[in-house]
Amino acid sequence: MRLLTMHPEVKLGQITSRSLADKPVHVVHPHLRGHVRQSFSLEADLEPCDVLFLCLPHGVAAGAIDRYRAMSRVVVDLSSDFRLRDAKVYERWYGQTHPKPELLAEAVYGLPELSRAALPDTTLISGVGCNATAMNLALMPLARAGLIERAIADVKVGSSEAGAEPGPGSHHPTRSRAVRTYSPSGHRHLAEVQQALGPINIEATITAIEMVRGVLATVHVLPTRKVEQKELWSLYREAYAKEPFVRIVSDRTGAFRLPDPKILAGCNDADVGFAIDEGSGRIIALCAIDNLMKGAAGSAVQAMNVALGLDESLGLRSPGVHPV
Amino acid sequence: MRLLTMHPEVKLGQITSRSLADKPVHVVHPHLRGHVRQSFSLEADLEPCDVLFLCLPHGVAAGAIDRYRAMSRVVVDLSSDFRLRDAKVYERWYGQTHPKPELLAEAVYGLPELSRAALPDTTLISGVGCNATAMNLALMPLARAGLIERAIADVKVGSSEAGAEPGPGSHHPTRSRAVRTYSPSGHRHLAEVQQALGPINIEATITAIEMVRGVLATVHVLPTRKVEQKELWSLYREAYAKEPFVRIVSDRTGAFRLPDPKILAGCNDADVGFAIDEGSGRIIALCAIDNLMKGAAGSAVQAMNVALGLDESLGLRSPGVHPV
Amino acid sequence: MRLLTMHPEVKLGQITSRSLADKPVHVVHPHLRGHVRQSFSLEADLEPCDVLFLCLPHGVAAGAIDRYRAMSRVVVDLSSDFRLRDAKVYERWYGQTHPKPELLAEAVYGLPELSRAALPDTTLISGVGCNATAMNLALMPLARAGLIERAIADVKVGSSEAGAEPGPGSHHPTRSRAVRTYSPSGHRHLAEVQQALGPINIEATITAIEMVRGVLATVHVLPTRKVEQKELWSLYREAYAKEPFVRIVSDRTGAFRLPDPKILAGCNDADVGFAIDEGSGRIIALCAIDNLMKGAAGSAVQAMNVALGLDESLGLRSPGVHPV
Amino acid sequence: MRLLTMHPEVKLGQITSRSLADKPVHVVHPHLRGHVRQSFSLEADLEPCDVLFLCLPHGVAAGAIDRYRAMSRVVVDLSSDFRLRDAKVYERWYGQTHPKPELLAEAVYGLPELSRAALPDTTLISGVGCNATAMNLALMPLARAGLIERAIADVKVGSSEAGAEPGPGSHHPTRSRAVRTYSPSGHRHLAEVQQALGPINIEATITAIEMVRGVLATVHVLPTRKVEQKELWSLYREAYAKEPFVRIVSDRTGAFRLPDPKILAGCNDADVGFAIDEGSGRIIALCAIDNLMKGAAGSAVQAMNVALGLDESLGLRSPGVHPV
Repeated sequence: MRLLTMHPEVKLGQITSRSLADKPVHVVHPHLRGHVRQSFSLEADLEPCDVLFLCLPHGVAAGAIDRYRAMSRVVVDLSSDFRLRDAKVYERWYGQTHPKPELLAEAVYGLPELSRAALPDTTLISGVGCNATAMNLALMPLARAGLIERAIADVKVGSSEAGAEPGPGSHHPTRSRAVRTYSPSGHRHLAEVQQALGPINIEATITAIEMVRGVLATVHVLPTRKVEQKELWSLYREAYAKEPFVRIVSDRTGAFRLPDPKILAGCNDADVGFAIDEGSGRIIALCAIDNLMKGAAGSAVQAMNVALGLDESLGLRSPGVHPV
Repeated sequence: MRLLTMHPEVKLGQITSRSLADKPVHVVHPHLRGHVRQSFSLEADLEPCDVLFLCLPHGVAAGAIDRYRAMSRVVVDLSSDFRLRDAKVYERWYGQTHPKPELLAEAVYGLPELSRAALPDTTLISGVGCNATAMNLALMPLARAGLIERAIADVKVGSSEAGAEPGPGSHHPTRSRAVRTYSPSGHRHLAEVQQALGPINIEATITAIEMVRGVLATVHVLPTRKVEQKELWSLYREAYAKEPFVRIVSDRTGAFRLPDPKILAGCNDADVGFAIDEGSGRIIALCAIDNLMKGAAGSAVQAMNVALGLDESLGLRSPGVHPV
Repeated sequence: MRLLTMHPEVKLGQITSRSLADKPVHVVHPHLRGHVRQSFSLEADLEPCDVLFLCLPHGVAAGAIDRYRAMSRVVVDLSSDFRLRDAKVYERWYGQTHPKPELLAEAVYGLPELSRAALPDTTLISGVGCNATAMNLALMPLARAGLIERAIADVKVGSSEAGAEPGPGSHHPTRSRAVRTYSPSGHRHLAEVQQALGPINIEATITAIEMVRGVLATVHVLPTRKVEQKELWSLYREAYAKEPFVRIVSDRTGAFRLPDPKILAGCNDADVGFAIDEGSGRIIALCAIDNLMKGAAGSAVQAMNVALGLDESLGLRSPGVHPV
Repeated sequence: MRLLTMHPEVKLGQITSRSLADKPVHVVHPHLRGHVRQSFSLEADLEPCDVLFLCLPHGVAAGAIDRYRAMSRVVVDLSSDFRLRDAKVYERWYGQTHPKPELLAEAVYGLPELSRAALPDTTLISGVGCNATAMNLALMPLARAGLIERAIADVKVGSSEAGAEPGPGSHHPTRSRAVRTYSPSGHRHLAEVQQALGPINIEATITAIEMVRGVLATVHVLPTRKVEQKELWSLYREAYAKEPFVRIVSDRTGAFRLPDPKILAGCNDADVGFAIDEGSGRIIALCAIDNLMKGAAGSAVQAMNVALGLDESLGLRSPGVHPV
């Protein structure tokens, strides 16, 4: 909603909520007071529209997708239901049969850096996994060059990644300054990485740290052969030089010489960078994003722009708020 | 700079720095990488321009002001040199003679909520004190109604208020989660409040808390007479209903029912609110701002817009980034 | 429990829990792994003991108090049920009739600085309110000297004050870096202050800030007459010079020249200090505590020590962990 | 100093400081007000003592070591000067010739878990590297069992690790909530790991996160053969069951089921744990410590206890302060 209020080609229509119908949106989104003047509508009162952003829980969106597609020219589904193209892969990672396998081939993964060509005129866009996005953008140039023998992603994430529902693990005294290994291995977003980058050898450990927004993927890459910094620069430049929302950050000095999500609050930029361990040859490939922007809503709006034939960066040009 | 990159009527010209000439701006402002492509210029190489934002230390700006006014149609000085209209008041609070007392009457205080009428066509705009702004906006409706017998402002501030220079007090292990009474009484911004609101009886205690951006002024007002919540609503609505950047926040329930700077990161909104202590009659008048926005750069750009005859909210419409 | 494991004269017996019976204590208190080897007992299996610390919700403790007193020589009740001596005052502030009014006169308020003389040989000790403790210790010397015309306490608190139960307001993304005016006026702890200090004119506003442990009470005192810093030193020294857990902190320079809860993590020290607003005569009286120590468990153990005739500081001598 | 005030067999003598001579210790260590009553002494006025803790910068301690050893029966040097036994290894990692190579064989590494047998009656104890300690304790059981084919340590650290000197990188607005890859590879502490565990194949990436105290080493171990959780339990139990300050933390559920430095503030416990990536066989070996305790002062006092023939855990039994 925040992004859509700033988008020059979007008029925000209805915002639905089961539990908050008729209450002003700012009751739960206090920063939008005055910016979004609507009250929540009942989902039953939803009217036809041009674009519908679905923010339903994982597993719920797919079951109801036909109804929503009937109401809107383009549906952008932010759940994980349409991220994977292969129903068997979905079943393996999510532990259930996909309710609408026939749509999986049709849905387009909403990360323009990966799927820009497929987006124009699509009517079903899938949101992206935030950790997947950080891993994908960190590794894409290396994967394309066939340089990944094995990749171990050590991903640092903030508390907003766990969603809006309070629980014992998100209780402030417990969560504050935690360094919690919440997923030592086997995170579902790996499926999105393998789909995007091909059958690479990738594992991930996810650690929740003190931060609300932000992901830093530190990917330890054991390369297929020895590489130099210069070659990495070429590969990353080739991959990203024309991308409006990917910055290559790999300076020699300075507190922010490598990607850091701290500087990306509210911003759709993904910062990617790299370093080489001279001793072992290991490549440290990094990607920092704001998980609620490039890792969710920002990429969704960017994908919508491409799908509708608008300027890709419309509504998304704000730099990060820094320091914050 | 962040705001100016988002302003549709501004083209960012030169950015000067003594120590960083020829280095790219993103070296010290990493979030602007790709958004601001200039390198720093030497101040000696400054070229004529339409608007010049001066970010010199307090006391330095006034001494050099003639040179800058000669180069630019409008000068917006973010130091405290031109905030006070009375050279004697300046001398009392700043402990030195003002170097350019003849300009004090000419400079316009850059808070449109106070000085909108004086801004059009002015050529010298003064920035505002961040704490002063929070106190001014919290109290203006009460001051105008003659309701303030005595006001004690308990102001909570973040670490960015102390500036960009590192020191022992800003060292992260020391500053982190501090609750530091850095100014028990006699803060200089009180002079700006008394100038803005008239000779009211106001004192302030400033406490630095864990936060980078943000000010919350909690002003304990002993009123001249008993008032009701309803009357306060009228007074605040009357004062602020037409203001594009002031929101009245005084709900009955919810975690954000009163002003909280948490939700204002990067946003030019000032949230004002109030409560009444039924027992004693004390009014608790509150104002939350992002000190780097409404308390500094945001108000400066807003004042520039008014001075140039542009739409007042141009470049400033982003809601706060929340949660962050 | 943490304190009792370090107490040389205490052997930790049973720890009861309805929901966690038979589970090791470290499941919910992970720092005590290896330090407390017991599992939780069912309350029904409670055995007689010398001292029983009751950590029941407010309102529940009083109803069951007879059973607990029958099982233990000394009961220390950490709820608010036995803090107020007057059943009518209790009813006014808590909105319900006290279930055991006949015990109110018997219970001793567990803040030795206030009630040391009454503690020896008592068998019912009440815990203290954390905010009340900060206000009481900040103001006691002034109240005794009859210097308080009116006092407005602006109290800054951490998230642990709201208890162990998660909820929307304590959800990390929402609570993190909040500056939330959760009680503009009328906080219940005021009843404890008026009981302790006499019928002084005191009000309070409580603001939740980014911090887990800690309270800073900034009390704005309008004095009955003009006072000097020197007189305040005398009054505070007289009140606290012999107190083992009160430090007077009122230096001229330094980041920690006035009380700051940051340096008190895990420590039973209360830091009190003061400053004078030269212009208005207002006294800024400050007290910083660790709300879980001096504001709860620390004072409870200290009171137990006095009640049992032990050295008052036994088990409580650790300085704060700083920096943290 | 904090630890020594709590140590029943230690009487704190002199504390020296070049810049702060004659000032009370609490000027820079405010938590010790009332706990340490000394003022700083000039180093020139140092008197003979039983144990001397040297807290000089790296490189300075070794040059002056003879003087200090002459004054004290036992010297515990907290710099990195005597951590490595091999002068050539020192030269390679520190880029300078060791000033006292003849003492390297004599100094005992002050981590009792590694060097307990060598400590009694030693007169020169070296402090430990904090990151080295976390890596050493995470890996020791695996290294002894010959299970490490390759280990990549992804170490998360707090701001106190960078020392007491303020600078641009530690400025609160810059450092707060940073996720800064300050050492992508080649950290000096690796030398201590290879010395302790043998010539294992280990690399490290160090990331500074929002935290003051604390280290979490997440070591991604590619094992020489497939192992099961059960075998890891045996290996870690065998290594650590008798250790007073190592806890094995590898539960099935709970927010703190794996090591987390959050719960270790002020505590000498090292928490080690492990998980297995079922897909790849990778072992995730973890160790959390308080870097200023087990990673510095705590281990130093523990080593002193062993060297002097005292109970090893004297003065060190406090659990972590949690939540904080």
